[in-house]
Amino acid sequence: MTSALPDDAVEYRIEHDTMGEVRVPATALYRAQTQRAVENFPISGSRLERGHIEALARIKKAAARANAELGVLPGDVAEAIAAAADEVASGLHDAHFPVDVYQTGSGTSSNMNTNEVLATLATLALGAPVHPNDHVNASQSSNDVFPTSVHVAATAGVVRDLVPALEHLAGALGAKADEWAGVVKSGRTHLMDATPVTLGQEFGGYAAAVRYGVERLQAALPRAAEVPLGGTAVGTGINTPAGFPQRVIELLREDTGLPLTEARDHFEAQSSRDGLVELSGALRTIAVSLTKICNDLRWMGSGPNTGLSEIAIPDLQPGSSIMPGKVNPVVPEAVLMVAARVVGNDATVAWAGASGSFELNVQIPVIASAVLESIRLLANASRVLADKTVAGLVANADRARAYAESSPSIVTPLNRVIGYEAAAAIAKHAVKRGLTIRQAVVDLGYVERGEVTEAQLDAALDVLSMTRPPQG
Amino acid sequence: MTSALPDDAVEYRIEHDTMGEVRVPATALYRAQTQRAVENFPISGSRLERGHIEALARIKKAAARANAELGVLPGDVAEAIAAAADEVASGLHDAHFPVDVYQTGSGTSSNMNTNEVLATLATLALGAPVHPNDHVNASQSSNDVFPTSVHVAATAGVVRDLVPALEHLAGALGAKADEWAGVVKSGRTHLMDATPVTLGQEFGGYAAAVRYGVERLQAALPRAAEVPLGGTAVGTGINTPAGFPQRVIELLREDTGLPLTEARDHFEAQSSRDGLVELSGALRTIAVSLTKICNDLRWMGSGPNTGLSEIAIPDLQPGSSIMPGKVNPVVPEAVLMVAARVVGNDATVAWAGASGSFELNVQIPVIASAVLESIRLLANASRVLADKTVAGLVANADRARAYAESSPSIVTPLNRVIGYEAAAAIAKHAVKRGLTIRQAVVDLGYVERGEVTEAQLDAALDVLSMTRPPQG
Amino acid sequence: MTSALPDDAVEYRIEHDTMGEVRVPATALYRAQTQRAVENFPISGSRLERGHIEALARIKKAAARANAELGVLPGDVAEAIAAAADEVASGLHDAHFPVDVYQTGSGTSSNMNTNEVLATLATLALGAPVHPNDHVNASQSSNDVFPTSVHVAATAGVVRDLVPALEHLAGALGAKADEWAGVVKSGRTHLMDATPVTLGQEFGGYAAAVRYGVERLQAALPRAAEVPLGGTAVGTGINTPAGFPQRVIELLREDTGLPLTEARDHFEAQSSRDGLVELSGALRTIAVSLTKICNDLRWMGSGPNTGLSEIAIPDLQPGSSIMPGKVNPVVPEAVLMVAARVVGNDATVAWAGASGSFELNVQIPVIASAVLESIRLLANASRVLADKTVAGLVANADRARAYAESSPSIVTPLNRVIGYEAAAAIAKHAVKRGLTIRQAVVDLGYVERGEVTEAQLDAALDVLSMTRPPQG
Amino acid sequence: MTSALPDDAVEYRIEHDTMGEVRVPATALYRAQTQRAVENFPISGSRLERGHIEALARIKKAAARANAELGVLPGDVAEAIAAAADEVASGLHDAHFPVDVYQTGSGTSSNMNTNEVLATLATLALGAPVHPNDHVNASQSSNDVFPTSVHVAATAGVVRDLVPALEHLAGALGAKADEWAGVVKSGRTHLMDATPVTLGQEFGGYAAAVRYGVERLQAALPRAAEVPLGGTAVGTGINTPAGFPQRVIELLREDTGLPLTEARDHFEAQSSRDGLVELSGALRTIAVSLTKICNDLRWMGSGPNTGLSEIAIPDLQPGSSIMPGKVNPVVPEAVLMVAARVVGNDATVAWAGASGSFELNVQIPVIASAVLESIRLLANASRVLADKTVAGLVANADRARAYAESSPSIVTPLNRVIGYEAAAAIAKHAVKRGLTIRQAVVDLGYVERGEVTEAQLDAALDVLSMTRPPQG
Repeated sequence: MTSALPDDAVEYRIEHDTMGEVRVPATALYRAQTQRAVENFPISGSRLERGHIEALARIKKAAARANAELGVLPGDVAEAIAAAADEVASGLHDAHFPVDVYQTGSGTSSNMNTNEVLATLATLALGAPVHPNDHVNASQSSNDVFPTSVHVAATAGVVRDLVPALEHLAGALGAKADEWAGVVKSGRTHLMDATPVTLGQEFGGYAAAVRYGVERLQAALPRAAEVPLGGTAVGTGINTPAGFPQRVIELLREDTGLPLTEARDHFEAQSSRDGLVELSGALRTIAVSLTKICNDLRWMGSGPNTGLSEIAIPDLQPGSSIMPGKVNPVVPEAVLMVAARVVGNDATVAWAGASGSFELNVQIPVIASAVLESIRLLANASRVLADKTVAGLVANADRARAYAESSPSIVTPLNRVIGYEAAAAIAKHAVKRGLTIRQAVVDLGYVERGEVTEAQLDAALDVLSMTRPPQG
Repeated sequence: MTSALPDDAVEYRIEHDTMGEVRVPATALYRAQTQRAVENFPISGSRLERGHIEALARIKKAAARANAELGVLPGDVAEAIAAAADEVASGLHDAHFPVDVYQTGSGTSSNMNTNEVLATLATLALGAPVHPNDHVNASQSSNDVFPTSVHVAATAGVVRDLVPALEHLAGALGAKADEWAGVVKSGRTHLMDATPVTLGQEFGGYAAAVRYGVERLQAALPRAAEVPLGGTAVGTGINTPAGFPQRVIELLREDTGLPLTEARDHFEAQSSRDGLVELSGALRTIAVSLTKICNDLRWMGSGPNTGLSEIAIPDLQPGSSIMPGKVNPVVPEAVLMVAARVVGNDATVAWAGASGSFELNVQIPVIASAVLESIRLLANASRVLADKTVAGLVANADRARAYAESSPSIVTPLNRVIGYEAAAAIAKHAVKRGLTIRQAVVDLGYVERGEVTEAQLDAALDVLSMTRPPQG
Repeated sequence: MTSALPDDAVEYRIEHDTMGEVRVPATALYRAQTQRAVENFPISGSRLERGHIEALARIKKAAARANAELGVLPGDVAEAIAAAADEVASGLHDAHFPVDVYQTGSGTSSNMNTNEVLATLATLALGAPVHPNDHVNASQSSNDVFPTSVHVAATAGVVRDLVPALEHLAGALGAKADEWAGVVKSGRTHLMDATPVTLGQEFGGYAAAVRYGVERLQAALPRAAEVPLGGTAVGTGINTPAGFPQRVIELLREDTGLPLTEARDHFEAQSSRDGLVELSGALRTIAVSLTKICNDLRWMGSGPNTGLSEIAIPDLQPGSSIMPGKVNPVVPEAVLMVAARVVGNDATVAWAGASGSFELNVQIPVIASAVLESIRLLANASRVLADKTVAGLVANADRARAYAESSPSIVTPLNRVIGYEAAAAIAKHAVKRGLTIRQAVVDLGYVERGEVTEAQLDAALDVLSMTRPPQG
Repeated sequence: MTSALPDDAVEYRIEHDTMGEVRVPATALYRAQTQRAVENFPISGSRLERGHIEALARIKKAAARANAELGVLPGDVAEAIAAAADEVASGLHDAHFPVDVYQTGSGTSSNMNTNEVLATLATLALGAPVHPNDHVNASQSSNDVFPTSVHVAATAGVVRDLVPALEHLAGALGAKADEWAGVVKSGRTHLMDATPVTLGQEFGGYAAAVRYGVERLQAALPRAAEVPLGGTAVGTGINTPAGFPQRVIELLREDTGLPLTEARDHFEAQSSRDGLVELSGALRTIAVSLTKICNDLRWMGSGPNTGLSEIAIPDLQPGSSIMPGKVNPVVPEAVLMVAARVVGNDATVAWAGASGSFELNVQIPVIASAVLESIRLLANASRVLADKTVAGLVANADRARAYAESSPSIVTPLNRVIGYEAAAAIAKHAVKRGLTIRQAVVDLGYVERGEVTEAQLDAALDVLSMTRPPQG
C-alpha cells in the first residue's frame, strides 16, 4: 500500500534525529522524521492536498525572512530557505511529501517533512548545514504552523478557486434566466400542479442561491483567514522574537495576496479549529443548494417520453450499457455525489473539530483533508455543471406552456372574485371531469349567472400574467 | 420554562440528602435529589420517554425481588417496592418524573428520581421507612441501572412497536404488489425512460425493503438486548450479593417478556453504548428505505396534470391555503420528515456514543432520548403511511401502460437480434422523429430488408413480457 | 398518544371545509382543517415551538393591517384579526395549536390552524364572520407565510435569547480569565506535558471562542432574516396587491423589532431553506466550541485524587447512587449532551434542506423544530453553564504551578541557547531519571562546562515568564 | 488535475461509439466511452478503489462463462474475456481505469471502462473482434453489474481484510488484559474517582468491544452480500437467458470464495443500496468503539508528569518540532482521525443511499468510494494500533495502585455496613481533610464506637478484592 516503505531495490542513506538513526531512500529530500512517519502510518495512502503543501512552504518562507529581519537567522540561511520554499510551493517536490493524512493529530510529521525537505534543499544551495528545527522551524512550532497552513490553504481555495467557480456557475444560470424570462410553465409545490412561473424565474432563483453561497463563504472568511502563527507551542509565543507574529503574517499576506490576519486570541486559535468548522458549514450549505438545483434539472429533463421533458440536458455520453440510445443527466448526478461527499466531509470536520483538549486540537490533518477536498470538489463540480450542462440546456417552451395552462391551480386568481371555497369547487370539478379551468367555470354556470364576466375570466386565466408581480 | 420550579402559590415540605436540606413541593412523590436536578437543569423541558420510565420501574421491581431472594432486603420491603414499581410502570405517576433529558450524563438524577418515588410510595404502603439508596437502589448503581433501562426500553420499542408497525406496512405494500401484478409501466433509471416493469414489481420491492428493515433490527437486537445490570458502579459488581446479575435479569426477562441477556463483558457494557449506536444505525437504514419509498410515491402521484400521475394518493385534507382544490401527498411528506429526524437522531447517538471515558459513557440520557424517539416515530409513521396512504392508492393503469409503450428503451430486446449499436440508432431515430420504436424499426428498413421479422418485432416489443424473468 | 383525538367524554360541533364536514371539539378555537391534521398526523406528539406560534401570529397581524391599508380587507376586520393575533402571540391560546410537527411539509396545517384560530377569535370579537382563507390568509399562502414564520422565530431566538446568553457566558469566562491571569500551569498538547500557560489564558481562549460564536450568528443573520413573505403560492406574489411585500414586512419589522428584510429573490426564498441550513451550521459550530470547553472543564476538575484536580467544579447534587460522597461535573455533561443534540439537529436540517423540489421545500416543519430547538437549548445551556459552573469554579493554584514546574517541556527556551537536539537529550534525561529540568542540565554538565550560565538557567526556567509574549 | 486529458505530447487513435468518434490515447486499453467519461468528469482525480476494479473484473469473468454455458457467447470469446478479466483482477491494468469517482451515478462509465478494457485485451488475445456491449456486457447492465461490484468488493474487504484486522487487534488487547489481570487501579466515572478496577478488566472490555465489531459486520453481511446481478436494466432480467442469475452468481461465488447470494427481490436490489447503508452503520459503530478505546489510551498515557501516567505508550517519533524530547500518542491520534473519516463517510453513504428514484439509485460510485475506504482505513488502522501501540504498552502498576487506594469511592463497601448516608459523610470528611478513607473512618469514631471493626475495615478496604465479582 505504501510504496515509500523500504524495499530491497532501493538504495538508502542513514539519517538521524533525537531518537536515533533511520534508513532513508538515498534520493529522498526528506530525512529521519519523515521516514519514521512513513513507517508509522501505513494507513490510507492519501497525502496532503497540493494547496496544503504550498501553504506550508509559503509559511516557511515568510518565517525565514521574518527571522532574518528580527535577528534570529542569518540572511543567507533565510534566503536559501525562502528559495527552497518557492520551489516546494510550486509543486516541484511533491513526491517528497510521502506522509499519510492519518498521522499525528498535530500534523507534526508534515511540518517536519516540510522542515526536512527545505533544510536539504537549502543546505545544497548554501553549501552549509541548515537544520530542520533550529533553522527552518525557528520561532515556530507544529502547533501554530500546521493549523495556519490549513487556514491559508482553505482561504486560498475559497478566494482563488471556489468563489470564481460559483460566480461562473451563477453567471451561466443567470444567462438562462434572461433567455427564458418569457417561457411560462406550471409551478409545482409538493410536486403537485401549482400556479405558473417562468423558467427564467426558476433559473434566476438558482443563480441567486449560488450567489448567496459566495456570500456565505465571505461571511465565514474573517474567522477562517485568522491564523495562529506566532503562538508556537501553546499560544504563548514561546521562543519567538518580539514582533514576530505581526511580521511573519504580514510577509505571508504579501506573498500570498490573501486576506490573512493574526489571531485575536492565540489560545483560542491554537486549541480550537472552529473557524474551519464554520467554513465547512458554509461549504455544506453550498452542497445543499447544488443538490436542490441538480435535482430540479434532472426532473425537468426527465423523459424524453415518460417524464416532464421541460428541458433537454446536453448528451455527453451513451447512458446505458444495455438500453441503446439512452441519454442520462450524468453531470448533475456527478454534482449530486460531490454534494454527498461534502456533507460527509462536513460531518468529519465537526466531529474532529470537537476533539481538542487543552492547548491543541489533535485531528487537524483530517480536518484539512476534508475541508480542502470539499473546496476543490465544489469548485470543479460548479465549473463542470456550468459548462457541460447549464450552458447547453434547451427549453421545451411549448410543453412548458401546455403544463401551465393545464394546471388546475390557475383557478387561484378567481379567489379574489368568488372566494376560496367556490374556486376550490371549480378546480375539483375540472380535475374530476378532465376540463380546463375555463371550461369548468362555464360548466358550473358562473358566466351564465354573471358572477364572472368573460373579460374577468380572460384576465384571470392568462398564465403569463400570473407570473408577474402585481403592479402599483 | 420549568413549571416545577418553586413558586409562591405552591406549598412545600423540607427533604434532605447527603448535601443538606431541599424544599420540595408538598405533594411531590419525589424527594431532595430529584428537586436538586429540577433546579440544576432548566434546559429543555423534555423529559424521559414513557417507555423509559416503565423500564426503570421494571428494573427496580426485579432488583427488589432479587435482593429479597438473596437476603439483601426483607421480603415486605421488596414487595412494597415491587408494587410501587408496577404503578410507576403503568404510567400512573409520570408527573412525578420532572427531570430534564439534559441532566447528568449517567442519568443518576433519573435513577434517583425513580428511587425516590418508589421509596415514597413503598413507605406509604408499608408504613415504615424505605430508603431510596439503601433499599430501592440496593445492589445497584445508576451506572448499571440507567443504561440497562435504555436497552430495555429500546428492545421493548423495537419488539412490541416498531417491528409490528413495519410488518403492517410491508403487508399493505405487498397487497398493492399483488393487486398491481399486471399493471405495466415504464421503468425509469436516472429518471429517464427505461424498459418496462410492473407497478406490482415496484411495490413488491418496497415491501421487501421494509421487511429487510425488520431483519436489520433483529440482527442488531442481540447486542441491544444485552444489559449491564449487575455491574453496579464500574462493572465489577461491587456491593451485589453473589448470583445477583443472573437472577435480577432473569426476573426482568420474565416480567417484560423481552429477550434480555446479561452482558458478556460487564466492562464493555458499562463503558460503551455501542449496542445502541449499532441499533441506531439500523433505525437510520429504515429511515433511508422509507425516504426512497415515499419519494417514489410522491413522484408517481405527481400532477394531476403536470406530473407523472401514475397513481392517485388519497385526499386527506385541503392542500393549500391559497390554491383552491389542491391536494398534496401530505402523509409521505410527514414520513420523509420523520426520516430526516431519525437521521439527525442517529448523528446525535454516534456523537454521544463516542464520548465515553474509562468506566462510563456520560451522554446516556441524550442517547436514550434519540434512540427511543426514533423507534416511536418510525413505528407511528409506518402505520400512518400504511393506513392513510398505501391502502388507499389507486393506479392509473392506462397512463402507466402508455408510458411503457412510449419508452424508447423498449428497443432493448432487439440488441440480441441486431446488436447494441444498431438498436441505439433506432432509439435515437424514434426520439428525434417522434416515432414509436416499431415505427422507427420499419422506417429504417429493418423489416423490409428482412433483418427483423414482424413476428420478432411483436415478440420483442410486448411491454408486459419484458417485465417477466426469462423462462427456462 | 394524541389527546386531541375524538373521545366519548368530549362534546363536538360540526365544522366544514372544501372537503366536507368534520367533528371538532366544541370548545376548540380551531376548525375543520386543524382537526383533519390532528387526525392525519398521530405521529410524534411534538408541536410547534412557542416562538414559532408567536411568529405566525405576528405575521397574520402585519398582513391584516397591510391588507387593510391596501384595500384588500375592511379596517374593522383587519383590526379584529390583529387583536386576536396579539392574544395568540402572547401564548394565551397555545392549547389550540394541536398539530403535530410531522405534518404536511409546507406547514399548511399549522398555517391553517393559525388562520382558523384567528378567524374564530376575530369573528367572536367582531360579531361578523371572518373567513380563515379569504380574510385571515388574504394576500398570503402557506408557502410564503410558513417559511417566513420560521425565519422570524429563528431570528428572534438568536437576537433575543441566544446572543445574550452567549455574551453572558463569555462574560463569566472572561471574569475567570482576569481572576486567574497569574495562575501558571502546564500547557498540554496531545494531552502530554507542554510549556506553561496561565489558567487565565485558557479561560480567555474560551471566552473568545464563545464571543466568536456570536460573530458566527451575526454573519449568518442577514440571510436568515430575509423572508419570503409576499411571494404567496410560488414566489410570483399572485393574489397580492401592489406594494404588499414591502408593506407587510415593514409592519412585521416594526412589530417585532427584528432586522427582517424582504427576500431579494422570491424564487430562491420559497424553493430553498438555505438560510436556515447556514444558520444551523453556525449553531453547530457553537456546539463544537462548547464541547471543547466543557471537556476541558471536566478534565481540569477530574479527581479529586486520581485526576488532574486543577480546578474544583461546584457541587450541585450527590453524584452517585452507590458511591457515597461522589461529586460529578453534571452541568458540563448536560451541556455536552445539548451539543450532541444540536449536532444531530444540524444533520436533520441539512438533510431536510436538500429535499426541496421546484417551487417548495417540503420539510419545513422539521427544519423549524430542529433549528428552534437548537437555539433554545444552546441559550439555556449557556446560561446554566455560566451561572452554575463557571461562576463557581475555584482554582487549585499550587497544584497548577507544581504541574508547570514538573513539565519536561520547560526545557524549550534552552533551544535558543544550545539547540533543539541537545535540549531533547536534557528532557529525556530528566524524564528517565526523574529529575527536574534544572537538575538534568546540571547533571549533564552544561553549567560546569559553562555552556549555560546559572543566570541563563534562571531566566530560561521561570515558568510564569514562559507564558508571556516576547517583548520588543 | 486530470493527467488523462489529451495533451500534445501524446499520440492518439480514433475510437467510436454510438455517439460518434473520440480521440483516445494510442496506448490506452480503453475506448471511446471511457475517454468521454475522462473528459466529462474532471472533478476529483479520485478513482475506483483497487478492490472495486477487481470485483468488476471477476463479475465479467463469471458472466462470460455463464453466457457461454447458456449459449449466449461462443466458448472462445468467453474464455478470452475470462483470461483478460483475471489480468485486470490482479491489478495489472489499473492505469487503464482513469474514470473519476464523480461520474454518472449508475457507474455506467466504470462498467463500460471495464467492458472496453476487457474487449481490447480479449480482441488482442483472440485475434477477432470482441465487442464491449454485445460480448463483454452480454446479459448484463450497468444497473445490476455496478452495484453488484460494490457489494462484492465490500464483502471481500470485510471478510478478508477488516475482520482479520479486528481479530488481530482484539487479540492484542486481550493479551494485555491477561497480562494486567492483577494490576489494580482506580475506576473513573464522570472522570471522577470511583471504585477500583483492574487494568486487565479495562483491556478485556476493549477486546470485547472490538470483537463485537466483528459480530456487527457478520450481522450486516447477509444483506451486504446479496447481489442484484441478473436483474439487468431494471430488475426484470431483460436480455438474460433463463438461469443466468443463479449461474453467474454461483460462478462468482466460486471464483471469489465469498458468501454471495442472489437478491431475494431484484427490484429492491436495484433501486436501493440499503444493504450498504446498513453495513456502513456497522463500520461507523466500529469507529465509535475505537474512538472510546483510543481516547482512554491517550488519557491513561497522559503525562509523563502532568497527566495520569498509568501506562506508557511506545515512542515512535519525536513528538514536537519545538518542545524537545516530547513523545506523543501519535498512533491513537491517527486512529481517531480514521474514525472521524469513517463517521463522515457514513453520513455520505446515508445521504447518497436515500437518493434513489424508481428503478435506480444514482449515487452508487460515491457510496462505493465511502464504504470501501472506510473498510480499508479501519482495517489498516486496527493493525497499526495493535502492532505499534497496544503490543508495546507498559503499565505503571505502582502508580495505578496508588490511585486505587487514594480514591474516596473505596468507602462504597461500607454502605452495606453503615448505610449510604454515613458512608457519604466519611468520604466528604476524607476529601476535605486530605485523609485516607481508613483514617477518616477512625477519625470519625466508627472503630472506637465499635460500629465498624478493624477486620471489617480490612475486608472492606482491600482494593483488589473490590474488583472481583462477588462469590456464591
